[in-house]
Amino acid sequence: MSLLFIREEEAQKLIDMPQAIAAVEQVFRSLGNQEAQNVPRHRVQVPGVMLHSLSASVTPLGYVGWKNYITTRTAARFHIALYDQEGHWVALLEADWLGQLRTGAASGVTTAKLANPEAKSVAVFGSGKQARTQLEAVCAVRPVQQASVYSHTAANRESFALEMSDQLGISVLAAPDPATCLTDKEIVITATTSQSPLVTGDLLKPGMHINAIGSNALNRSELSADCFSRINQIVCDDLNSCRNEAGDFVEPLKAGTITWGSMASLAELLTENKNQRECKSDITLFKSVGMAIEDIAVAAHVYEAAKEQGVGTVLDI
Amino acid sequence: MSLLFIREEEAQKLIDMPQAIAAVEQVFRSLGNQEAQNVPRHRVQVPGVMLHSLSASVTPLGYVGWKNYITTRTAARFHIALYDQEGHWVALLEADWLGQLRTGAASGVTTAKLANPEAKSVAVFGSGKQARTQLEAVCAVRPVQQASVYSHTAANRESFALEMSDQLGISVLAAPDPATCLTDKEIVITATTSQSPLVTGDLLKPGMHINAIGSNALNRSELSADCFSRINQIVCDDLNSCRNEAGDFVEPLKAGTITWGSMASLAELLTENKNQRECKSDITLFKSVGMAIEDIAVAAHVYEAAKEQGVGTVLDI
Repeated sequence: MSLLFIREEEAQKLIDMPQAIAAVEQVFRSLGNQEAQNVPRHRVQVPGVMLHSLSASVTPLGYVGWKNYITTRTAARFHIALYDQEGHWVALLEADWLGQLRTGAASGVTTAKLANPEAKSVAVFGSGKQARTQLEAVCAVRPVQQASVYSHTAANRESFALEMSDQLGISVLAAPDPATCLTDKEIVITATTSQSPLVTGDLLKPGMHINAIGSNALNRSELSADCFSRINQIVCDDLNSCRNEAGDFVEPLKAGTITWGSMASLAELLTENKNQRECKSDITLFKSVGMAIEDIAVAAHVYEAAKEQGVGTVLDI
Repeated sequence: MSLLFIREEEAQKLIDMPQAIAAVEQVFRSLGNQEAQNVPRHRVQVPGVMLHSLSASVTPLGYVGWKNYITTRTAARFHIALYDQEGHWVALLEADWLGQLRTGAASGVTTAKLANPEAKSVAVFGSGKQARTQLEAVCAVRPVQQASVYSHTAANRESFALEMSDQLGISVLAAPDPATCLTDKEIVITATTSQSPLVTGDLLKPGMHINAIGSNALNRSELSADCFSRINQIVCDDLNSCRNEAGDFVEPLKAGTITWGSMASLAELLTENKNQRECKSDITLFKSVGMAIEDIAVAAHVYEAAKEQGVGTVLDI
């Protein structure tokens, strides 16, 4: 048996954000049409090492596959595998950057659907790798001209501002506090590892769209509970996954401000227009914890491009 | 990063059934002591191809890992991965035979605990690969002298009888029907893919121990519902997994003959003596659907032996 091993630096040359957004939108449409299956993340651990496992199938793409990744106190290593329609294991991909790309792409798909079309300003919370692909994705679907970034460490937000201004060709400024970061912004990204909320209800403005992607554990939240009485529409990447992982929802669910029945999945938004923006002043929220179908989407694109261009290393196993 | 790839024919030289039984018993004890975690099997599919994913951690062994396998109409391919205490992906193993070995080993562990000590006769239903390691495991823990085998196709049961007599040095006879197969037997193995039960309640005798391992889907059962009013003790490899997959339990649960509360897990049997045999005439049942901790147990043994003996292929990925 031989399979194609694709390194991260090879993958980066085979897919860009607009391609990732198109690929991720397609798999969510497949999911809405009952042509894809997604298994939420499961975790097991020994002291100091956690294994995270996800799997999915996408019939129109003709692949089943998994993502497994390891996190330790100092490192994280991600791999995606694809099996084709004959059941052959055809590809193994390094998937750290691919994971950031697909999480950005899912926010891109949703922002294109939920944010006001003319939105041109973005507030970013967090200055890590995920924050970068989030901003890139939003810029790919809206005419963004300016952004501001807040994170706890001044040096980090300043280098983020500098680098992302350069990469995206827009003005990105480092903000000294959350309130300044949010002033006059139409789209909000939270991509932090903060355990306590940075965004509070009083800072939200009518018409805002929020992509909250930082928490995928029930003990971490980026939005304070009082935000939820102001949010009109909530769309989740996956309701099952969010039940396991969306820390942002714990308090407002307990308080009764929101219910699972009031939320829609991204697949439902795309295929049934469920929970779409109803008016310009609505505040909309996309809550994303990450799904294996997104991994399969970008991995399939990369694998097929790699085959076509002769990229990657054949492993005979 | 480099990891050790171990082929099936290499693994076969690095572990035998007694070693597998010892390894599997240890991980179930770890599970009972809250030193291991097991995620039940999840499945996704595209037409014609199903991906099955399991994962587990075993702290005393110092590994986390997964098993992923693909089944199609004509083939099945299994792989196990191990990650060490530093979070490094250290091993990838072909695991078709290893899966048969560990399933046999789990039955060996349970038979050693539940079957009457002097049991020396075995009825085997099914003549496939899983049936072989089941019989081998039972022979490893009880003084078996004779066995009989029944499967639908005469040629299959006859070749099983011939080959297993030779391999195990005991008398194995092909039986023309289930009743003949069960006559005067003390241990019963069901390892079929039958959708409808082969073993009915009237055929059970006091003192029997049964290992039922063939069904891991809710629409397949090897034991008829009327068996369950005669069975005194039920032990499951894993109660969560059996809720998802033990087709044998569907009818008797519906009828109220058994309840989940009346069953014990193998970990509970080993560490708390829960649901152990109470008297010589008890009929005991081990229901096994397969668990990732068993895969980690045998894979860890094989990987460590391979490292020591310089076996396997280093993959630089």
